[in-house]
Amino acid sequence: MVNTLFLPELREMLAEHNEPELIEFCTALHPARTAEFVEGLTAEEAWKVIQFAQPALRAEIFNYFELDRQIDILIHEDEKLVASLLVHLASDDVVDLLQELPENRAEDLLALMPSQARRDIRRLQNFPEGTAGSVMTTEAACLDERLTVREALEALSREAESLETVYYIYVVDDTNHLRGVVSTRKLVSSIARQDKHLSDLMETDLVIVHALDSQEEAVQKVARYNLLAIPVLDDRGHMLGIITHDDVIDVVREVATEDAQRIAAVQPLRDGYLRMNLLTLSYKRLIWLTILFFAELITAFVLTYYDADFKEYIWLVWFIPLIISSGGNSGSQSATLIITALATEDVALRDWAKIIRRELACGIVLGSLLAMIGLGCALLMAPGPREASVIPLTIILVVICGTLSGSTLPLIFKRIGWDPALMSNPFVAGIIDILGIVIYMTMAKFVL
Amino acid sequence: MVNTLFLPELREMLAEHNEPELIEFCTALHPARTAEFVEGLTAEEAWKVIQFAQPALRAEIFNYFELDRQIDILIHEDEKLVASLLVHLASDDVVDLLQELPENRAEDLLALMPSQARRDIRRLQNFPEGTAGSVMTTEAACLDERLTVREALEALSREAESLETVYYIYVVDDTNHLRGVVSTRKLVSSIARQDKHLSDLMETDLVIVHALDSQEEAVQKVARYNLLAIPVLDDRGHMLGIITHDDVIDVVREVATEDAQRIAAVQPLRDGYLRMNLLTLSYKRLIWLTILFFAELITAFVLTYYDADFKEYIWLVWFIPLIISSGGNSGSQSATLIITALATEDVALRDWAKIIRRELACGIVLGSLLAMIGLGCALLMAPGPREASVIPLTIILVVICGTLSGSTLPLIFKRIGWDPALMSNPFVAGIIDILGIVIYMTMAKFVL
Repeated sequence: MVNTLFLPELREMLAEHNEPELIEFCTALHPARTAEFVEGLTAEEAWKVIQFAQPALRAEIFNYFELDRQIDILIHEDEKLVASLLVHLASDDVVDLLQELPENRAEDLLALMPSQARRDIRRLQNFPEGTAGSVMTTEAACLDERLTVREALEALSREAESLETVYYIYVVDDTNHLRGVVSTRKLVSSIARQDKHLSDLMETDLVIVHALDSQEEAVQKVARYNLLAIPVLDDRGHMLGIITHDDVIDVVREVATEDAQRIAAVQPLRDGYLRMNLLTLSYKRLIWLTILFFAELITAFVLTYYDADFKEYIWLVWFIPLIISSGGNSGSQSATLIITALATEDVALRDWAKIIRRELACGIVLGSLLAMIGLGCALLMAPGPREASVIPLTIILVVICGTLSGSTLPLIFKRIGWDPALMSNPFVAGIIDILGIVIYMTMAKFVL
Repeated sequence: MVNTLFLPELREMLAEHNEPELIEFCTALHPARTAEFVEGLTAEEAWKVIQFAQPALRAEIFNYFELDRQIDILIHEDEKLVASLLVHLASDDVVDLLQELPENRAEDLLALMPSQARRDIRRLQNFPEGTAGSVMTTEAACLDERLTVREALEALSREAESLETVYYIYVVDDTNHLRGVVSTRKLVSSIARQDKHLSDLMETDLVIVHALDSQEEAVQKVARYNLLAIPVLDDRGHMLGIITHDDVIDVVREVATEDAQRIAAVQPLRDGYLRMNLLTLSYKRLIWLTILFFAELITAFVLTYYDADFKEYIWLVWFIPLIISSGGNSGSQSATLIITALATEDVALRDWAKIIRRELACGIVLGSLLAMIGLGCALLMAPGPREASVIPLTIILVVICGTLSGSTLPLIFKRIGWDPALMSNPFVAGIIDILGIVIYMTMAKFVL
């Protein structure tokens, strides 16, 4: 919902170049709300409005603009103003934004930035997508281990505005090796002992990630150790940057969404659903659909084999979708439960025997109950009670097959080092469809 | 993996009551690592080890124990020691733990806690599960608006040890109404102006939640406004507590996992997969399986209607699973994409027309490509080219039906205020199965 409350007033203020009121507008609200209020303006107008905020605040408000608007501004507004805005954004966000610009525009903007910032960004650009290095920011509070509490507080107070987080102080030596961490909490509670050195206060048992570790690993550590930020080091222990709590929340969401998409047999989108090119979207879905289609083709070949039986007992056809979907649904449930439990570290590979026992038991319970309903219907529809018994017997077996394959396949994938979420539900369902038909017809031949 | 590295040494230290070394062990490592190292000990031994840590640190280490171990300790160890441990835990965690204990034990422990802490916990216990109030903690840094920067820093330094987060200072008036927020970052960068009052520094455009709002709402706000913690108020604006970043990460994960489970037609587990009672697990799966089973029963009734056609053209049977699963799979993809996009606020209800256009286009592209493969096989298997044409024509229509119903049903659910994830993939698949069979047989009658 675009907030149109202030639009006429804002346009009037802009037309009159009403500086005091525009400054007031930019500073009175939470930057996210300011961004909401200018949503109804054009990108050009919104950009004009936020020129009345101080550079740091301007960058904060800009941060809350929608991606399309941000790109629009970066492409079309004055190079110098834009470059000075970029200096105030977190370096990881700058990297993401530059990636969306035409290459020469990105180069022009980079050329206008101070050399230190430019170097940082070039370095970040080199980390492959999905690594810890690609989501880190270089704006961390790194202080010398020889500083006292008082000096550290003073240094922080000078830098606080430009740092993304001041909640941890990273203590480094002369060659930028990370030696320890002091939380601001610890620093604040040590105010009474102003002459202590950072090296006396710092924790030296560090939780860190390496720049080439996966972003999932960074997130797992942040969640496990309840951190606000995690430092990122290179191979030789040099401090490169930090991954902050807001990026962690984004990554948690992204990973969970990607898992859900894989479970439903879509290649993860990465970009937003609506932003994505229609052909790319189709392509990401087509790969799996085609694989699944070929899997289901096998059912067609299997069925040709039973032509004679179907001709004799045409009522067997009626139950085909019911039987294969019972197996498919219980298999999807098992696969999803195990995949999500593995992703949240709720179960581990070493629990495999326990998992299989549970799923077997669940399959028997669920299969028996569904079989009872199935028996009721089969008695009404099949020619006689002996014929009807085929249906419940098949259902029990198919449901057990479903829970067992739905639970073991993700475990096997995990074991051989693949993403268990690749063992998508439709894939499990495809396997169950084939098995289901074989079980069904074997059972029918046996009973009839 | 249980870390067995230090176990013999730890047992020896305990036997010898080697105080200096046990204190060293408790303090040298990150509390989470200390907890890992004692994982191989019994709960009783681990409890003995952490008695050598200061109360605040002891509570931190305890926090990283596994839930079963925590409960074991709370039930079996000395009441007074346990109660004094609880005082140092975050109040929301205490509420969660007490819930797992036998009622009289929980009451005994509560009775031993200081009256203020007991009142806080009783109040938290009254908030229904899933509300913001149920995940908040009462340990927030609330300071009087009349304090100066210097006084605030001193007050913080006294309380910092016992507070869950000192990254925001909540500024309250005499009646505990929330008036503003000062970030520690702001406070630290104002050290040079020590005589300013908190009321001069505070932000007054507040982002808050009410205690009875849903925890999802709290999380959305924290993510949208990039917060480290969000204050929780009652109806009259009194400060009740805060929800902190670590709880937010937990809730984000929980919500994403629950969505994935609903998408696969399992009622959200809440408890861990392995901790859950087998009957409860079966029950949570059975409800949906039964509903889906009845949906699939409709396919059986629909199929009885086409007996004569199947007798004449038995080869039509071969393609039943292929056709219904093509529709089901493309429908699952659409449903998952839309459900996850809605959950991450990547699309909104107002985008409905755009979504349906995209899904229609996707359905046509995907359906046509699968139809071409289908045509190839049908030409090989069906009696003649005219007969074979039934298969690709059906596939196109069924896939389009799949993408359209997979995308519109979650949108409709969202519109009427239900959880879109309830529109689970198997449910979409069930609808497509019925539609698919009707389309298939209508097409067959039309062509043949």
